[in-house]
Amino acid sequence: MARISSLLSFSFTLLIFLHGYTAQQFPNECQLDQLNALEPSHVLKAEAGRIEVWDHHAPQLRCSGVAFVRYIIESKGLYLPSFFNTAKLSFVAKGNGLMGRVIPGCAETFQDSSVFQQGQGQEQGQQGQGQGQQGQGQGQSFRDMHQKVEHIRSGDTIASSPGVAQWFFNDGNEELVIVSVLDLASHQNQLDRNPRPFYLAGNNPQGQVWLQGREQQPQKNLLNGFTPEIISKAFKIDVSTAQQLQNNQDNRGNIVRVKGPFGVIRPPLRSQRPQQEEEESVGNGLEETICSARVTDNLDDPSNADVYKPQLGYISILNSYDLPILRFLRLSALRGSIRQNAMVLPQWNANANAVLYVTDGEAELQVVNDNGDRVFDGQVSQGQLIAIPQGFSVVKRATSDHFRWVEFKTNANAQINTLAGRTSVLRGLPLEVITNGFQISLEEARKVKFNTLETTLTYSSGPVSHGRPRRADA
Amino acid sequence: MARISSLLSFSFTLLIFLHGYTAQQFPNECQLDQLNALEPSHVLKAEAGRIEVWDHHAPQLRCSGVAFVRYIIESKGLYLPSFFNTAKLSFVAKGNGLMGRVIPGCAETFQDSSVFQQGQGQEQGQQGQGQGQQGQGQGQSFRDMHQKVEHIRSGDTIASSPGVAQWFFNDGNEELVIVSVLDLASHQNQLDRNPRPFYLAGNNPQGQVWLQGREQQPQKNLLNGFTPEIISKAFKIDVSTAQQLQNNQDNRGNIVRVKGPFGVIRPPLRSQRPQQEEEESVGNGLEETICSARVTDNLDDPSNADVYKPQLGYISILNSYDLPILRFLRLSALRGSIRQNAMVLPQWNANANAVLYVTDGEAELQVVNDNGDRVFDGQVSQGQLIAIPQGFSVVKRATSDHFRWVEFKTNANAQINTLAGRTSVLRGLPLEVITNGFQISLEEARKVKFNTLETTLTYSSGPVSHGRPRRADA
Amino acid sequence: MARISSLLSFSFTLLIFLHGYTAQQFPNECQLDQLNALEPSHVLKAEAGRIEVWDHHAPQLRCSGVAFVRYIIESKGLYLPSFFNTAKLSFVAKGNGLMGRVIPGCAETFQDSSVFQQGQGQEQGQQGQGQGQQGQGQGQSFRDMHQKVEHIRSGDTIASSPGVAQWFFNDGNEELVIVSVLDLASHQNQLDRNPRPFYLAGNNPQGQVWLQGREQQPQKNLLNGFTPEIISKAFKIDVSTAQQLQNNQDNRGNIVRVKGPFGVIRPPLRSQRPQQEEEESVGNGLEETICSARVTDNLDDPSNADVYKPQLGYISILNSYDLPILRFLRLSALRGSIRQNAMVLPQWNANANAVLYVTDGEAELQVVNDNGDRVFDGQVSQGQLIAIPQGFSVVKRATSDHFRWVEFKTNANAQINTLAGRTSVLRGLPLEVITNGFQISLEEARKVKFNTLETTLTYSSGPVSHGRPRRADA
Repeated sequence: MARISSLLSFSFTLLIFLHGYTAQQFPNECQLDQLNALEPSHVLKAEAGRIEVWDHHAPQLRCSGVAFVRYIIESKGLYLPSFFNTAKLSFVAKGNGLMGRVIPGCAETFQDSSVFQQGQGQEQGQQGQGQGQQGQGQGQSFRDMHQKVEHIRSGDTIASSPGVAQWFFNDGNEELVIVSVLDLASHQNQLDRNPRPFYLAGNNPQGQVWLQGREQQPQKNLLNGFTPEIISKAFKIDVSTAQQLQNNQDNRGNIVRVKGPFGVIRPPLRSQRPQQEEEESVGNGLEETICSARVTDNLDDPSNADVYKPQLGYISILNSYDLPILRFLRLSALRGSIRQNAMVLPQWNANANAVLYVTDGEAELQVVNDNGDRVFDGQVSQGQLIAIPQGFSVVKRATSDHFRWVEFKTNANAQINTLAGRTSVLRGLPLEVITNGFQISLEEARKVKFNTLETTLTYSSGPVSHGRPRRADA
Repeated sequence: MARISSLLSFSFTLLIFLHGYTAQQFPNECQLDQLNALEPSHVLKAEAGRIEVWDHHAPQLRCSGVAFVRYIIESKGLYLPSFFNTAKLSFVAKGNGLMGRVIPGCAETFQDSSVFQQGQGQEQGQQGQGQGQQGQGQGQSFRDMHQKVEHIRSGDTIASSPGVAQWFFNDGNEELVIVSVLDLASHQNQLDRNPRPFYLAGNNPQGQVWLQGREQQPQKNLLNGFTPEIISKAFKIDVSTAQQLQNNQDNRGNIVRVKGPFGVIRPPLRSQRPQQEEEESVGNGLEETICSARVTDNLDDPSNADVYKPQLGYISILNSYDLPILRFLRLSALRGSIRQNAMVLPQWNANANAVLYVTDGEAELQVVNDNGDRVFDGQVSQGQLIAIPQGFSVVKRATSDHFRWVEFKTNANAQINTLAGRTSVLRGLPLEVITNGFQISLEEARKVKFNTLETTLTYSSGPVSHGRPRRADA
Repeated sequence: MARISSLLSFSFTLLIFLHGYTAQQFPNECQLDQLNALEPSHVLKAEAGRIEVWDHHAPQLRCSGVAFVRYIIESKGLYLPSFFNTAKLSFVAKGNGLMGRVIPGCAETFQDSSVFQQGQGQEQGQQGQGQGQQGQGQGQSFRDMHQKVEHIRSGDTIASSPGVAQWFFNDGNEELVIVSVLDLASHQNQLDRNPRPFYLAGNNPQGQVWLQGREQQPQKNLLNGFTPEIISKAFKIDVSTAQQLQNNQDNRGNIVRVKGPFGVIRPPLRSQRPQQEEEESVGNGLEETICSARVTDNLDDPSNADVYKPQLGYISILNSYDLPILRFLRLSALRGSIRQNAMVLPQWNANANAVLYVTDGEAELQVVNDNGDRVFDGQVSQGQLIAIPQGFSVVKRATSDHFRWVEFKTNANAQINTLAGRTSVLRGLPLEVITNGFQISLEEARKVKFNTLETTLTYSSGPVSHGRPRRADA
């Protein structure tokens, strides 16, 4: 008996297995009958902050082909330089700081003025002189030169190329919060569809916990992988310094606390940026473009908004016309800020997947899939993420004083189609298509087409139905 | 005994399973030892027509990365607006009709003349006035404005971007038949490799039967997925009209019969299209390009043929030089029409997969794969489909009075290599390569290179071998 | 007992299976904990040479998305015309020869002078005349015209488009050795991720042994797949010649020995190539570009080197700025030649996978993955291959008199980031980031940044640690 039941259990297991196998043979990762507001699934704690990672195997993120990360950097926290195998688009959700990138082959254009006055020709010969100055502890008197450092602040969107090292420093008094989307499905990622940070310094004692199929080991910096002798020869330093570069005894993680001043050379706080000039330079030699290409833009200045209604809110879009590097990264962003009871008219992305991250407040969302099923009907609130795949329709209604969010889209020029309003699809259809399609009168069809004069934002008052997704009822 | 045989049967199952698993781990979907002329596998019936869907899991279509659909729209039938997650290229196989698309952000450039005379400035204020006119039943007296509507006719090829809604109306007396290829493998499709129509109006009571891994439910229109309250607020209409938009009680499918006149604003029937002008505008601002970009071209006018032999037939090619939007869609088309006993010389596509659909008549095809095996040797006839993957060689010979077909190719500029003829590969090889390669005399090699003066079409008389694919014999 | 143990063994098998299944559901092909220096896994023997194929299922090649092949062509050996489903980049590792390609639609620009003098207009009428000349055995007196034939020599890099037939002839006295990378993961390959050679002539009696999931059958030429009657009609030759074209009795493989002279029309041996002219023509009509586009460049001339140090060696890079066709193929190459004890400073590829093939000598390599683990620490020597995935850091140290290698990269403009040296990432970081990141003093940080003045190559003396990959120790 026992044996027979064992056999039955086996065959049952096998059947389940075969079913899974068939499903997989023809991948259906966008067969999404239900979406969820997602929270991070892994937290990597570090000395001066933490890195929160969303599970990129979640069905809606797998369908969208992206990973998502949130960096919380405390005051005086330094996110050590690292790079990814993917294009990355980041948004500063909170706080202020400094950012540096190191682009291969570009010059160290930020120089301490005392060095500059001495002339560059003498620089290299004088390297040895600096040694006696150790311990003075003031940035200004040290001779240094490095690549561009930029101020970043809440609302900034930052484009990052794969393989290019980047660091952040929180020079403010509040937390610096940065959220980033990593485009796993783009051809810019030449590895598999996993996010893989490479650390130049720092480490991650917990290991890459978001990866499957490998027994996790603590993640070390790159230099750690070479033998100290090689490091010593490559940098022309003694072996003991080489070993220090390997950070073996370091348990601070990848966000460390800076003790003392952080005297990197930086420009004064920026004012208005002249956008036109930089765009013109695109198309010249790659080197010029890459070294001087602008990679940030601020989306929180309502004076630059693409949609602006003082009573309702604003929406700003950042695409490759604004920031040409996005053409290579094939990503774009949308920033929205709406007031209580404002509604974003129902719309879909024609040529992109989107992931929506809530930076402030909360809203009610309804999302509809290709089958006409409501796959999400509920609240999203600060710190939550939801994916809106290509073609899925969504309507948003603020339910707190302010609802603010950022959407990252997997196309350099994502096109939005609205269902209602002056620039909507229904407005573009002939009345006869509407009357015949919906079996309504010409009078009603005319109302459907012309009643809503707004393009994107409208007033929304009164309660909204808050049932479960319709499919569950059926 | 029984138990042992059970165990044996289990282990056998497991072995088969493991074998499948291994095969899958390294996908081999182009390991094609046999092709078939394919017929539709699913038929969606609607009030005024039907939609016939080919199984995109068929090995040759999986290898080619495409799905294929045929729309049969009866006289007075209206294919309600819908959009896809993929780029789409369509061919009007039969009949005449109207087509409309709604491109996000583009203006309603088609206006009823009475509206036009009153001036656009007054338009919005007067919307309410139209309500009393309901029931007059004549298109002309209604005020309407909508996006471009175009006449389509047999031979037209129509390019469609993902996410852009499109409708068709059969204003002729015979069936309107449109066949469409959907490019699942292109980066324009950001979902999984399944064709997913999104319905703005109409429905599909059978559900998306071509999908696997989801229990099918009837497919509704997009508005159906939102709550009526949201629809009501978005369109500023009352809730009962909102419920009508959701078409819940509608069982007409996605092709409905228009009762009464279909008075959409339309241009007079087109004559010659000035191709040059439109091409020049490409490269300007995207908005201009998208709103005014030409998306159709007729391939049935022999005066525009790329290959034309009065006695044999003609071949016309539509690529991104003719229709610039194809550059974005990465698709192109070829139309062929040959007479009894004409032969298309053996050729392969260098940089594209192709799917060949027979619009009229029948022909004998031989197709050869990478291994030099004949994987198809037989008849294809009207309404059948066959895939010709990249590099596979094919020869076509008409076996009816007229054989006419359309080939869709997964490259904006598909390159054809011919094996025989004046522009063929063998003509481009030195004689010494041919004599040494095939172990033939110089005299024979010279015949091989120079005997056939035609480039594409030649006479073919006498019977052609009609055995089974050679591999089956081996 | 036996039964219970059987059941246990079953459940164990199933567990392993399920584990593999899960791993596969979320593919992790770049989860590389160990790399190996790879040798060919299959050898196809032919009359006048052999074709050596690396197993493209090896984890590091699967991650990189490429296949790799080595052609060894003996003196007087002719590699018969064939084409691939992928873009291909080749490097002539040894020897001299001739290369011909046949591009569809391009003219036969190489003409025997006697034909040329008679005028092209008479050519076609005179085809029959040549028949009596058979047996004279001298290339000059034969009338022939064919597409471009080029001399190739050691150091040449050759770009090949998918679907374009190519042949090689060894006209020297030593072996002609060509290595080729096939980009399986690029969109240029529209089939599955398997390398598929298509043979115009010749055959492969062993079959495509590198493919899985198909019972191997001998691979024949394309003409073999058609019926002789079709061949006869297409080429307007008699059936017996058609049968000869099918090479059924031929067992010479795809590299055959040329008996007698090989009198193809060829230009004199090239001297300096004027690079500028050809680049300017890009962007004109596709036909012009494709027919006249340059596809080769020599990387062994130190006078064109990108990095050159007389005592240490040189490095030359070939990207789409040098060879514009690489923009379409999305491939580039790097040639390195260093002397004993020279070291290439540690570096990674920001936007490309690379495969490194050793043409001469040997070197010690250390490779570090995303986790900071040393995944390779050992010797690579002549004829071996190793993949360096995107973001993985590598350091090379020559351990023989000369170490020479070629790297193929899956990006038309692969960017190298160096860890140490004048243009390195650490040089671009502010001192404060280095001191805080590595917990070292300002004095040490300054040494780390400024001590190494070289950009790429430096001296390396003394023994290098030669342990096992670090992970194995842990």
